[in-house]
Amino acid sequence: MAIPVETFFLDPDAQGTLQAQIQQMIAEGILSGRLAKGERLPSSRRLAAHLGVSRITVTLAYTELQANDYLTARDRSGFFVSQNAPEPPRFAPRHPKQDRIDWSRALGRRFTGGATPEKPQDWSRYPYPFIYGQADPRLFDHANWRHCALRALGQKDFQALTTDYYDQDDPQLIEFIARHTLPRRGILAEPDEILVTMGAQNALWLTAQVLLTQRRTAVVEDPCYHALRDILTQSRCHLTAVPVDHDGLPPGALPERADVIFTTPSHQCPTNATMPLARRKALLARAAEMEALIVEDDYEFEMSFLAAPSPSLKSLDRDGRVIYVGSFSKSIFPGLRLGYLVGPRPFIREARALRASVLRHPPGHIQRTAAYFLGLGHYDSLIRRMSGVLAARREAMEAALAEHGLRVAGRGVFGGSSIWMRASEGADMEAVDHALRVRGVLIEPGAPFFHGEAPPRNFYRLAYSSIPAAKIPAGIALIARELALSRQAGWP
Amino acid sequence: MAIPVETFFLDPDAQGTLQAQIQQMIAEGILSGRLAKGERLPSSRRLAAHLGVSRITVTLAYTELQANDYLTARDRSGFFVSQNAPEPPRFAPRHPKQDRIDWSRALGRRFTGGATPEKPQDWSRYPYPFIYGQADPRLFDHANWRHCALRALGQKDFQALTTDYYDQDDPQLIEFIARHTLPRRGILAEPDEILVTMGAQNALWLTAQVLLTQRRTAVVEDPCYHALRDILTQSRCHLTAVPVDHDGLPPGALPERADVIFTTPSHQCPTNATMPLARRKALLARAAEMEALIVEDDYEFEMSFLAAPSPSLKSLDRDGRVIYVGSFSKSIFPGLRLGYLVGPRPFIREARALRASVLRHPPGHIQRTAAYFLGLGHYDSLIRRMSGVLAARREAMEAALAEHGLRVAGRGVFGGSSIWMRASEGADMEAVDHALRVRGVLIEPGAPFFHGEAPPRNFYRLAYSSIPAAKIPAGIALIARELALSRQAGWP
Repeated sequence: MAIPVETFFLDPDAQGTLQAQIQQMIAEGILSGRLAKGERLPSSRRLAAHLGVSRITVTLAYTELQANDYLTARDRSGFFVSQNAPEPPRFAPRHPKQDRIDWSRALGRRFTGGATPEKPQDWSRYPYPFIYGQADPRLFDHANWRHCALRALGQKDFQALTTDYYDQDDPQLIEFIARHTLPRRGILAEPDEILVTMGAQNALWLTAQVLLTQRRTAVVEDPCYHALRDILTQSRCHLTAVPVDHDGLPPGALPERADVIFTTPSHQCPTNATMPLARRKALLARAAEMEALIVEDDYEFEMSFLAAPSPSLKSLDRDGRVIYVGSFSKSIFPGLRLGYLVGPRPFIREARALRASVLRHPPGHIQRTAAYFLGLGHYDSLIRRMSGVLAARREAMEAALAEHGLRVAGRGVFGGSSIWMRASEGADMEAVDHALRVRGVLIEPGAPFFHGEAPPRNFYRLAYSSIPAAKIPAGIALIARELALSRQAGWP
Repeated sequence: MAIPVETFFLDPDAQGTLQAQIQQMIAEGILSGRLAKGERLPSSRRLAAHLGVSRITVTLAYTELQANDYLTARDRSGFFVSQNAPEPPRFAPRHPKQDRIDWSRALGRRFTGGATPEKPQDWSRYPYPFIYGQADPRLFDHANWRHCALRALGQKDFQALTTDYYDQDDPQLIEFIARHTLPRRGILAEPDEILVTMGAQNALWLTAQVLLTQRRTAVVEDPCYHALRDILTQSRCHLTAVPVDHDGLPPGALPERADVIFTTPSHQCPTNATMPLARRKALLARAAEMEALIVEDDYEFEMSFLAAPSPSLKSLDRDGRVIYVGSFSKSIFPGLRLGYLVGPRPFIREARALRASVLRHPPGHIQRTAAYFLGLGHYDSLIRRMSGVLAARREAMEAALAEHGLRVAGRGVFGGSSIWMRASEGADMEAVDHALRVRGVLIEPGAPFFHGEAPPRNFYRLAYSSIPAAKIPAGIALIARELALSRQAGWP
C-alpha cells in the first residue's frame, strides 16, 4: 500500500528551507517506525500539490533522501522506503515536543492503583492455565455464533446494526431476556425494568453510581470480587466488609446500618458458597429492617451441572428491594461484554440515563447477534455441552487435589468453574504464582479478593474453565510440588 | 418452541394447594404475556419432576386450565396455551408485589433530566429526515463491512473475538490508528498514548471524569453539543460557556482562569465554523498562559469534500496540552460505538483504568472488524463515496434554501453534513418541529445546544447525512411553508 499523501504535514513553525523540512519530515517518519521499509511514497507531483510547494522541491528532497539510503527509486514506480534505511529504535524515540504539563496537578481524579491484579494477556500460551473467566476454544460454539453474527449482519437487520439507539436497547434481546432468561431465575420483569450493559462489570458500576454517594454505606462480602471493591472505592462511599462463612454472607453479621448490600448468594465469589433458602429469607428480612437495598450478582448460575440452581434472591423479593445483575459474558465469551440489570423502574431510569451519558448503548450488532444465539436455542445447547465438560474437569480436579493432599477451602455444591483453595499458614501464593508461571502454570493468588491492609496470603483460586481435563493431573502435580518446595525453603 | 421447564417456579411463600398454585402460576404467565398463544407447555412428567410434586397434581392443574380455556390439549403432543386464552392487557399488569422502596430517598444521584433531547427511534420512516448522525443505508458499505466482520469471526481471530482484554485494546486497531489515521491529522502518537472508547461520547465522558472535580472549571463553547453539557453538568464542575463567532471559539473571550477547555476547532458543533490557523495558535498560547488543558473534539474531519481539512489543534501542540477525541461512529455508522482518545501517557493511564472499571474494553470483535475495514482501504473508499454524495446533497440544500429564502447561520467551508439555520426572531423551532413531524419532516430544534435558562428558540440544524438529494427540495419547501404559516399565525 502506498503511504497516503494526507499523512504528510509540514510543521507551520518549522525552521529551515522547505526542502530540508520535507527531508526531515520523511526521515523522522522512517526513524519513528511510522513509515515501514518497502512502502511507496506519494509521487512528487501529489506530495507537492498537497503541501503547496513546487514539485522540484519535493524531487530534490526525495533525491537527497535516496543518496542517504532512506529511500530507493524504482523506474516508473516512484520512491520507496529503502530496505537499508536506518532501523527504528527498538523503543520508539520520544516525541520532539516536551510535556510541559504538571500531571500531578492536572489530573482531577486518579483511577489507577486499584485492587484488581494485572493478568497475563497471553494466558492461552501457558500449558496449565487454571485461569478464571476466559473462553475455551474447545467449548465455545464458534460455528453457530458466527452464523448468528452473519444473520445479524444481513440487510434485514441493517438498522439493528447501524442505528444510534440513543438510550434504548435492541427490543429483540430485551424480550428474550424478559420471557426466557429471567423466568429461569424465578424473575418476572417488564422491558422497562431491564437494561443491557457492557457485561456484569458495567452493571455493577452503573448501580454503584446511581445508589451510592460519599455519605452512604455499602456492604461487601469479604472476600469478594476485587473489581467490585475498586468500583466502590472509586465511588468514595463508606465500605463495610462482612466476612462470609460456608453459607455465604451471614445476615446476623451485617452492621447496624447500610444503604446497599452487594452479594453473590447463588455462588459466592470467590469461595463458591451457595446461600441456603432460609438465609436468603433472613437476609431479605434484615435488609428490610435496615431499609437497605440489595444488589444480587447472579453470575454463573448456568454452570449448575451438579444440582439445579436455587431460585434467585430477586425471585423472593416482594418489596422491590433487590437489583439483579446477570451476564452473558461468562457463559458465551468474556470479550462479548454483554450483561444486564433488572430492577425497579425508578432505578433503571437513572441507570439508563447514566449509561447514555457514558457510552450511549452497547453496540446494536452484538445485542442482535446475542438475541439470535439465545433465541435459536444455541445458548442452551452450549450450556449443556459446557456442563458435561465442566463436570468431567471438576471430577479430574477433585481427584488430583485429593491425590496430592491439597486443601479445598470452598467448592460450589451445584457446579461452577473454580475451586477456592487454602495453602498452609505462611504460604505466599503470589510468590508461588511467580514460580509456577515459569513452569507453565497459571493460578490466581487469593489476596486481592480480601479486604484490608493485611489480607491473608495463603489462599488461591483454581479455575477449570480453560484447562482440558487431561492437563489437570499434571498441572495440579506441579502446583503441589511448588508448594512443597516453598514450604521446605521456609516460605519466602 | 416449548416453554422450558426451568422457567417455572413455585413461590415458597404461596398459600393454597399445590394444584391451585400451579394453576395460578400458569394463568399468571399467560395473563402477563410471558407465555404466548400456541406455545407448548412442558409435559406433566417433566414439570412434576422439576417442581418436586406428583405428576397427578400437574395433570389435574393442566386439565383445570383446559376447562377454563387457558390451555388446549392435542393428542399425544401435550398441552398448549389456548388461542382463546384471555388476552394479556395492552399495558401489562403491575407485578403482584408492592414496591416498598422510597426511591426519592434511595437514589444517591440522578442522571435523568439532561439537555439532550429525545429523538425519534423511527426516524427512518419519515420521508424527509434532516436528522444528524444516523447511518444512511444508501451510503454505507454494507458488503465490505460484512466481509470484514466475517473475517474477524474466523478461527484465526478467535482470541481477538472472545478474549477478555482486561484494560487493553486490539493491538491491530491501535497500530492502524497510530500509523494511518492520526498522521492524517498531523498527530504522532505511540500506542500507549491511544485509548479505544465506545464512541466520542465515551471519550468525552472519560476525559471529564479524569480531569474535572467540583473545584475545577471547564469552558464549553456556546452553543455546543448538548450531550457534552450533560456530561459536564453531571461531573459537577464549574461551567463557563463562551459564545462562539464565525471563526469558532474566540480566545480573547476566555475567562481569567479555567482548568479545561472543550472545543471543536475543525468544525464547530453545531455552527460548523472552522477555526483559522492564527486563532488556533492564539488559543494554544492563551491556554498555556492559563495553564489550562484543551480537549479537541475533531468529529467529522473526514467529511471534507469542499476543501482539505486544516491540521488538528493537537498537531500544533508542543506542550502536551491537547487531548484529542476521534470517532469512527460518525463515518462508519453510529451503532458501531467506536472512537478513541489521544493524549499524554499520565492522562491515558488514568482514563484506561477508569474505562476498565466502567466496562473493561470495547468488544474485541468490533475492534478487529474496524481494524480490517480500515486496513483493507474500505474506510477510505467509503469516505470518498460519501464525500461525492454529500457534496451533491449540499448543493441541493444550498439551492433549495436560497430558493425559499431560508437564512443560513453557519455552514462548514470544507464540507460537513449539516447546516446551522436561523429563523426570524419570535420563531419557536420546537413548535415548528412538532408541526413538521406530522408532514413527515424531521429537523433538529437548536435550543438544546445553547447554555442557560432562556436559550434562543429560533435556531435549528438541518443535516443532509440521511436524506437523499432528490428529497431535499420538497423537504425544504415543507419547512419554508411551515415557517411561513407559523409567522402568519403570529408564532406560538
